[in-house]
Amino acid sequence: MSTARLEAFSDGVMAIIITITVLSIRVPADATFSSLISLLPVFLIYIGSFQTIGTYWNNHHHLMRATSSVNAWVMWTNLHLLFWLSLIPFATEWLGDHFGEPWPTAVYCAVLLFAAAAYTMLEQAIIRHQGKDSNLATALGNETKGKISLLCYVLAVVTAFIYPWISYALVVAVIVMWFIPDRRLAP
Amino acid sequence: MSTARLEAFSDGVMAIIITITVLSIRVPADATFSSLISLLPVFLIYIGSFQTIGTYWNNHHHLMRATSSVNAWVMWTNLHLLFWLSLIPFATEWLGDHFGEPWPTAVYCAVLLFAAAAYTMLEQAIIRHQGKDSNLATALGNETKGKISLLCYVLAVVTAFIYPWISYALVVAVIVMWFIPDRRLAP
Amino acid sequence: MSTARLEAFSDGVMAIIITITVLSIRVPADATFSSLISLLPVFLIYIGSFQTIGTYWNNHHHLMRATSSVNAWVMWTNLHLLFWLSLIPFATEWLGDHFGEPWPTAVYCAVLLFAAAAYTMLEQAIIRHQGKDSNLATALGNETKGKISLLCYVLAVVTAFIYPWISYALVVAVIVMWFIPDRRLAP
Amino acid sequence: MSTARLEAFSDGVMAIIITITVLSIRVPADATFSSLISLLPVFLIYIGSFQTIGTYWNNHHHLMRATSSVNAWVMWTNLHLLFWLSLIPFATEWLGDHFGEPWPTAVYCAVLLFAAAAYTMLEQAIIRHQGKDSNLATALGNETKGKISLLCYVLAVVTAFIYPWISYALVVAVIVMWFIPDRRLAP
Repeated sequence: MSTARLEAFSDGVMAIIITITVLSIRVPADATFSSLISLLPVFLIYIGSFQTIGTYWNNHHHLMRATSSVNAWVMWTNLHLLFWLSLIPFATEWLGDHFGEPWPTAVYCAVLLFAAAAYTMLEQAIIRHQGKDSNLATALGNETKGKISLLCYVLAVVTAFIYPWISYALVVAVIVMWFIPDRRLAP
Repeated sequence: MSTARLEAFSDGVMAIIITITVLSIRVPADATFSSLISLLPVFLIYIGSFQTIGTYWNNHHHLMRATSSVNAWVMWTNLHLLFWLSLIPFATEWLGDHFGEPWPTAVYCAVLLFAAAAYTMLEQAIIRHQGKDSNLATALGNETKGKISLLCYVLAVVTAFIYPWISYALVVAVIVMWFIPDRRLAP
Repeated sequence: MSTARLEAFSDGVMAIIITITVLSIRVPADATFSSLISLLPVFLIYIGSFQTIGTYWNNHHHLMRATSSVNAWVMWTNLHLLFWLSLIPFATEWLGDHFGEPWPTAVYCAVLLFAAAAYTMLEQAIIRHQGKDSNLATALGNETKGKISLLCYVLAVVTAFIYPWISYALVVAVIVMWFIPDRRLAP
Repeated sequence: MSTARLEAFSDGVMAIIITITVLSIRVPADATFSSLISLLPVFLIYIGSFQTIGTYWNNHHHLMRATSSVNAWVMWTNLHLLFWLSLIPFATEWLGDHFGEPWPTAVYCAVLLFAAAAYTMLEQAIIRHQGKDSNLATALGNETKGKISLLCYVLAVVTAFIYPWISYALVVAVIVMWFIPDRRLAP
């Protein structure tokens, strides 16, 4: 079974998730500058969600390029990843309404944690199916980054109940970690 | 006529249906744990809807791979399947608001029933067009599962008015039935 | 310039339009049978909208298959068609809220009229670009049907202010007209 | 790395953005002609947003056709462009609610400005990656138009606080500027 339709479906789902997340930024009732400023927290969270989904799309793209065929288990683990990503619009909207509060922060970080765990499961499923060849090794070169992400998200769920700003810092740290090396590749 | 654009369009529609269903999980007004817990029913129904659409996508994928060309009747029966699937977000949201009540339960199960019937119609349309070749035989190997699904959904519509939990059990049973054998294929 | 990306984009837009139209069916506040029955008008209009968009997708598919390349004007007329189709969710929702009233009926029929006119413009643009070859002749064999559709929609806009049920009958007549011959092709 | 999946994802995101922008046109509560007329401002803004996204899709299409491969930096700049485009539904809805008021006008024009700047960044990223070959030179022939667009949008943000109609005229001028030459190509 080829990866083409799996990629097309995943692209479609991720494209829709990334786009409907913007609906979390609710249009203010009046037209003043202060209404606009009050959107700042949800806008920043939206940037984080957008960049996180963008990173998944980017990594997913590389993972699939290193994969020549998929089996049923790969398809289900891929769907499982999409499930957790599909909760990002909800988590973004709830946190946007209650920025700095423990439960929405914890739920946001937990959704990112489960998505990261699902991505690791998908990688494992592909390795089991393909064997460790050179292509995949390249794609999985950043397995360490995956483990650091999981650890950061676990910590972020915990710190949400202590001092939410640490959670936000951890989420941003993961985004930056995935972004920087890609940037280094630019000419 | 090739299946490529039919698959692309169906993938697009299913990707959007699976994603907008998440809008059924409405963000709670406050940021408490009890608000979060009150979302549990709609969250569980969302999992069911997500997994059901995922199963359709998966089966549709296999069906189309076993099909080399489509005619007008196949296109219309495919559109008919997408019509019933498109009602899943509505059914999920109504049942999420009124978990355990007869009519929303019956409507949810009826939508799944009509979708399953539409899928059977699509299979028949393809068989008529293609003739029973080996590829298709493989894809239709689970015709028995299709019949059991239809039966379960009919029962679930009826039991919605007697004891809705039987309906939920039947819906879960169908999901599990379609999932298990695929899992068995994993290495 | 090949038609591939034009088709992919059009498919995406039509898939989303067909799916978000379902949001017109608003979930009722309670869980009773009478609430469900009160959704009947909007449900029927949704069927009409779904089938209409499905017919456009189907015809668009045939038109593009008869086209080997596109120019800038074809791209703009295609976008123009998508613009009018994108208003179908709005028209469906407004008519669903006010079934039988003149203005929502007239707007619904006017949107269908402008979409049909835009489709005719797209056909003309392709003919100008391609010349009348045999493929296109086949695809345009139903130019008569296109003209009848335009006439029906013009009439439907007018009758909306006299007796809206005539408008609904005309919209249904167009749907049936496009559907029947395709059905005849089925084995 | 080939451009195929980048195009597919961008097409998906742009198709969804162009379609959910229509949700800015909120269905009026009653069924009168005056309610319909009150939608005129948001309808006109919707046309502007639709045409602007359509222009980006069209230009993006040409840019990608002139590009044989992409690197990580091109992928991120492309995602950056999609980010700003994803804010168009929000900007359209806010301006639709408060037509003629300074802040919503300024935000609308600022979103278009940042999108235009992001598009320029994407072009630069591709030039750095590809070198200036003849294909790309053709695609970038309208670099002057890009600069005029940026200038118009900067002016439009400023004039939003002085006389918003100048801002609207500038936005329309940019749309027309991008449209006209394409039209000239038509036979």
